[in-house]
Formats: sequence, structure tokens, C-alpha cells
Amino acid sequence: MSILVQKYGGSSVADVQKLKAVAGRIIQATEAGYSVVAVVSAQGDTTDELLAKAGEISVSPPKRELDMLLSTGEQISIALLAMAIAEEGYSVISLTGPQGGICTDHIHTKAKILRVDPGRVRKELLDGRIVIVAGFQGINDLGDITTLGRGGSDTTAVALAAALDAAACEIYTDVDGVYTADPRLVPNARKLREISHGEMLELASLGAAILQPRAVELAAAWGVTIHVRSSFGDALGTLVKGGDLMEKQRVVSGVTRDLNVVKVVLVDVPDRPGVAHKIFSTLANESINVDMIVQTTKQGPVTDLLFTICQDDYPLTRKLIEQVTEELNVSQVIYNEKLAKVSIVGAGMMSNPGVAAAMFETLAENGINIEVISTSEIKVSCLVDAKKVDVAVRAIHDRFRLGEEVIA
Amino acid sequence: MSILVQKYGGSSVADVQKLKAVAGRIIQATEAGYSVVAVVSAQGDTTDELLAKAGEISVSPPKRELDMLLSTGEQISIALLAMAIAEEGYSVISLTGPQGGICTDHIHTKAKILRVDPGRVRKELLDGRIVIVAGFQGINDLGDITTLGRGGSDTTAVALAAALDAAACEIYTDVDGVYTADPRLVPNARKLREISHGEMLELASLGAAILQPRAVELAAAWGVTIHVRSSFGDALGTLVKGGDLMEKQRVVSGVTRDLNVVKVVLVDVPDRPGVAHKIFSTLANESINVDMIVQTTKQGPVTDLLFTICQDDYPLTRKLIEQVTEELNVSQVIYNEKLAKVSIVGAGMMSNPGVAAAMFETLAENGINIEVISTSEIKVSCLVDAKKVDVAVRAIHDRFRLGEEVIA
Repeated sequence: MSILVQKYGGSSVADVQKLKAVAGRIIQATEAGYSVVAVVSAQGDTTDELLAKAGEISVSPPKRELDMLLSTGEQISIALLAMAIAEEGYSVISLTGPQGGICTDHIHTKAKILRVDPGRVRKELLDGRIVIVAGFQGINDLGDITTLGRGGSDTTAVALAAALDAAACEIYTDVDGVYTADPRLVPNARKLREISHGEMLELASLGAAILQPRAVELAAAWGVTIHVRSSFGDALGTLVKGGDLMEKQRVVSGVTRDLNVVKVVLVDVPDRPGVAHKIFSTLANESINVDMIVQTTKQGPVTDLLFTICQDDYPLTRKLIEQVTEELNVSQVIYNEKLAKVSIVGAGMMSNPGVAAAMFETLAENGINIEVISTSEIKVSCLVDAKKVDVAVRAIHDRFRLGEEVIA
Repeated sequence: MSILVQKYGGSSVADVQKLKAVAGRIIQATEAGYSVVAVVSAQGDTTDELLAKAGEISVSPPKRELDMLLSTGEQISIALLAMAIAEEGYSVISLTGPQGGICTDHIHTKAKILRVDPGRVRKELLDGRIVIVAGFQGINDLGDITTLGRGGSDTTAVALAAALDAAACEIYTDVDGVYTADPRLVPNARKLREISHGEMLELASLGAAILQPRAVELAAAWGVTIHVRSSFGDALGTLVKGGDLMEKQRVVSGVTRDLNVVKVVLVDVPDRPGVAHKIFSTLANESINVDMIVQTTKQGPVTDLLFTICQDDYPLTRKLIEQVTEELNVSQVIYNEKLAKVSIVGAGMMSNPGVAAAMFETLAENGINIEVISTSEIKVSCLVDAKKVDVAVRAIHDRFRLGEEVIA
């Protein structure tokens, strides 16, 4: 039994025509001899519509109830997709995340997969059925429904591929692969044939919005090769894999932007041990990811503390920071939602000094001020004015000549 | 711990304002000292919208997948209601049918409750939480989601009331009790203070659309008294209970109509043993309820066979009848969707001959032809032209003077 895991995002199943196209693609893989497990997201804007319903009732509803609500989105998709496949005369069954054996921790709305119990999926595959699994959701050991956070369906697909020892894991999206930059932003952006797990991880974390970072992390840990491809065509996409890559001689692989950023500045924080821990553990306890952190020295017994969070976490962060800053006697908190992050990613950066400097120079040439800088071994990120971030992406893409094919 | 089970129908939770009103009502009962378990249906037209989605994909989708789809409706309701209650500062938890321990058989879309495992509900009540349970749905022993058929939330509420040994079971609807006839049809229809399980069962089966028949059956079997009342006011409604009733001296308790009827006539069915069994077991195997059955004698080795089904089952019935009549060499099948059923119900009928005759006379006086008659100990039903059924209901209501209060 050669198992193929496919994942279809929300835009791939947004309406009846698209659902039928996805059904056709799954049937094609079945006819090619694969035992297919398809992981599906909620249709189109369903999740946002459900969030809006919750928003009418409460500004910060209990997260457990939010998961109860949101998980219906995928449940609708899997049922409809199974119907579309059955209509073509194929044997098929849909499974919710809990039924698919996706066991998670208790962190509602951002649960992590602890293990996959693939018993039911295997049984159905052995019985000759196509299996449709709801992405994004799982079950904790209380029997409660959890969700994996935005883009969690990718994680579901990779986890199932690992647990089932699948021959391949195909992630279908509305783009046909991983590009050097967002093609809607940069007309001469180029599709990459391959990219390493590490590079993809940085791209994913930085807002390329193609794969969920945790999915890539999991794929790296389990050695799962992901094939990112378009659900609207048959072209080969981009392979995200471990090991030696053909394109490793490229210093920079891609440029990304991330608009989902809020900058928080705490002015005059007491400069004594334990204060930073107090602030960031308060946020961590609520599973709020803090990205860039900068502490600046001042005269006297206080410092300024700056960090960024994503916009989804803004209301809750504000509430928590208000509590903690009152305790700590912080004089002022400034929030800025009008910033965006532009980043370059590339495994070749490690051995090429001067890459960051070239990026800063390009931004300066274009009159773009840098608010915060953050770097890792394979990426450089700058926080800039959101209105100027598109210009920044295009200028950096040109500077590193990413639109040109490199001959090995 | 005095447990109160309340059930709110789809129209009671149709929008945010109504959800908040229901939340207020539940909180009121909590403040009065009850441990409240609220059973909720899908919001407003959600179920019909989901059915329409399925209909775009398939004329007869797999029923298991239909259950997977439809059960999302209640899941949305319970999450939103729990949020509305939490917003008021009360401790609350929502549970799906499976989480609420509603264990059913395998008949998808018309599952029967085999047992209730109230462990989780009890635990949450003991922890001081208000518990919101999704009506209409359960789980079979494969771990698959089942639904209980139209109006199944009533059944969920009664089953939970029985399993939890609740002090009371209140069913909130958009009417404020059980009437002698539909008040929209008959202006002088009168609200009944009490009605027996048996009478309610006939009324429920005959399309009064206030309580689900199986819920009443279950209430009768377990001795659960149901309080039918309006979710939009505080007035007392109608008690549906066992034992001696104050109003038993009334011969006829109510008149109902049922528009959800399709008449099927099989012309020239071979008149030999096993034929009727063949036809009706084919329908029963697909859980299609057949109501009135009439067989008429003809000359020769054939008979005509007439029966009625409800409109939901029409497409499937047609398909099954086509197969079976081909095998049996039946010359013709006639379907008629333009009929309706008018019925009178009353425990007093048993000891009052002439009630049926009075009904037939009233229909004749109004120029209404009777197509089929069916009777039980406490009801008489006639199939008539759907266009004339409202006239029939009003005339019969007048004939038995149901609008007048009876002094015991």
C-alpha cells in the first residue's frame, strides 16, 4: 500500500466547482494506484465568518469554545468533499481531526500535536476507502476539540504523512510553488524548484503564507519531503526537503514581507533582574508568540523594552500588558500597528558576510527607515513603515537579482 | 443538586439577540438554584442551508456524510451560546452530542438513542458549570457522528432528563404551549394546560410540529413530564404528562394538519403472498416510515396498493420503488404530492362512538373528498386535497367546539 497524503487549502475547496475539481484530483491519484489521505481546510472565508459570529458575542470568548466553533469549518469541508467523491462512484469516508487520531495538548486555538494515532485511517485505507481528514483540529485527553492555529492543516498533513510513512506529502495551495518573492508584489519573482526545510522554515515564519512554520518544523524533524503545488494546474511545484540542495550556491533564496505585526514599546521599565521574565512569561502563558525583542539602555534605573507580536494576539496582549505594567509601574506603553516586516532568507548567508549590509543599503537608497533589525543564521528581518514595505520587497529582490535563473 | 434540563429550538437561538436572551434565561434558572443542562438546536435555517450545500453536490449523498455535515449546525449554536453565558461571567461548557454521551445505533440521519452515558455532563455540573449540549446528534460505537432526524433535539433533552433524573424538562419553542389547533390557522384555538403523553404522541406524529414524536415516546416510557413553553415570554405553557388528566372528559383535544405527505399508488401489484413484505421491507431497510397503507381488491390476480410517506423520503422512495416494481412487474406507479392529512386526537374518543362519523360529516358538508382514512384508539386521520385542508381544520375545530373552555 503506497500512501499519498494530499492537503488542500481553503481556497482550493471554496465552492462546489472547486470541490469537484479537488475530488477529481484525488480520484486521479487513486486511479494511479495510491491509497490517498486528503487533508482539507475550511472553505474560503468560513473561519473568518465564524470568528465574526463569535466577535458579535464577546471580545475575548473562551478559547475552548472558540475551538468548538471553528472546528465546524473543516467538518463541513470534509463532508462535502466526501460527497463529491462518492458521487463519482468511489468508496470514501470523512474523518474529523479527533477521528483521524490527531492527539494534541490542551492549548486551545494553538494546540500542538503530541502524537498521531493512525489506526482508524489505516483501517479505512485497508478497506479500500479514500480517507478525507479535517485539517487544523485535534482532540486533547479530556476529549475536547482543539485547533492548531492558523494554517494548522499543513501540520495535520505532515503529521499524518509521518505517522503513515507516506510515499509523499503534497500541499496544494493557490500558488504553484515557492517563489523568490510574492509574484503579486514582484512581477519577475521566480519559482524555486527546491528549497531546504531550514530556508522554508524562515520563509514560513516570515509571512510567506505558503506553509505553516510548524508543519515545516515537523517535516524537518521527520524527514518528510513536502511538494508544494497548485490545485489549479498540473505543473510541478517546489520540493521542500532536507539534505543537499541544487540551489545552495544562491546566497539569498527569497524576500518576504509580513503585515501581521504590532510593535509594542514599554517606556521606562524598571531595570532590575526578573522584570523581562515577568513580562514575557505572562505572554508565554497565554501562548502569545513574541517575535523581535529589543532592550535599549537609558540613563537611570529604567530601560525601554520593545517587542513585536502578531495582530491576532493584539487584544489579549493589550489586556495582559495593562495588568503587568500597572504592577511594574511602567510609565507608558506605545502600540504601533502601522509597521511591516521585510526579510531576506538564504542558507548561503552563513558563509557570505555583507548580505545584511547590502539589504540595509538598499532600504536607505529607497528612503526607508529601519525601526528594528533581527537576524538568524539564514535570515535578516527589518521592521519598516507598512506603506513602504512593497517598495522595499521589490528593491531588495532586484538588488540580489533573484529574478534571474542561476546555472549551476 | 437539582438538575433542570431545558431545550431551545432553532428559532430561539436564530441570532445574537435571541442567543443572549436564551443565555439570560439559563442564568436566571442557575440563580434560582438549578444545575442547568441546556440542549440547543442549530440556529434558524442553518440545517436547511447545509442541506442545500449537499444538494449542490449530490441528489442522495451518503447518509454518514450528511450527518457529518449537519451536526456542525448544533456545534456552532452550543459554542456561541456558551460564549454568551461566559460573557456574563458564569462558568459554562459546551458539549457535542458525542461528548454529552448520547450513544446511538448506526442508522445515519435517523439514529435512535440506545443509551445515555451522562458521566461528563454530571462531572461538569458538579464542577459548578452550566452545561450546553448539542441536540439532534450522537455517536455510534464506531465513533461516527449520527443525527436523530428532524426535531431530534427534543429527544436529546428528554433522554438527558431521564438519564440525569432531572427535576424537570422544559422544551422552549416559538409557540407558548399546545393548542387545540394551530392558532395561525384557527383564530379561536385554545391553549391546553395539560395533555397526556398518548395524546401528545398522536398530535406530534400528525404534524403539530411542537414536539418530536420519539421524544414524547421516550418521555412516556421514562415518566418524564415535559413543560412546553415559549422562549419569548414567562407564561406557563402546557404540561405533557402521564397519569390522570384534568381535561380527560374532553372527547377531542385537538385538530392538526400535516402537509408533509406524499401518496404512492402501485397499480396492478401481483396478488400473492410475500409481495407486500418485499415492498415494505425494502423501504424499512432504508428507514423510510410508511404511514397509511390501504390495499384494494380487484378482479384477477392483481391488487392496487396505496400508502403514504413524508416528503423528505420522496426521492429515495421513488428510487427504491422503481427497482422493486420492475422486479415485481407492476404496471404503473402514481405519486401525488398535492394531498394533506387532517386529524383529530383525543383520549376520550375510545369511549365515544360517533366521533369519526361526525368528522366525516363535517368534511362532506364542506365539499371535501376523503382519499384515505386511518384510525387509532385516540385519533382519526383523513387524507384530503391540500388546498382544502385549512378549511377542514377550521370546520372540524368548530364542530367539536374546541375553542370553548370546558368546566370540569
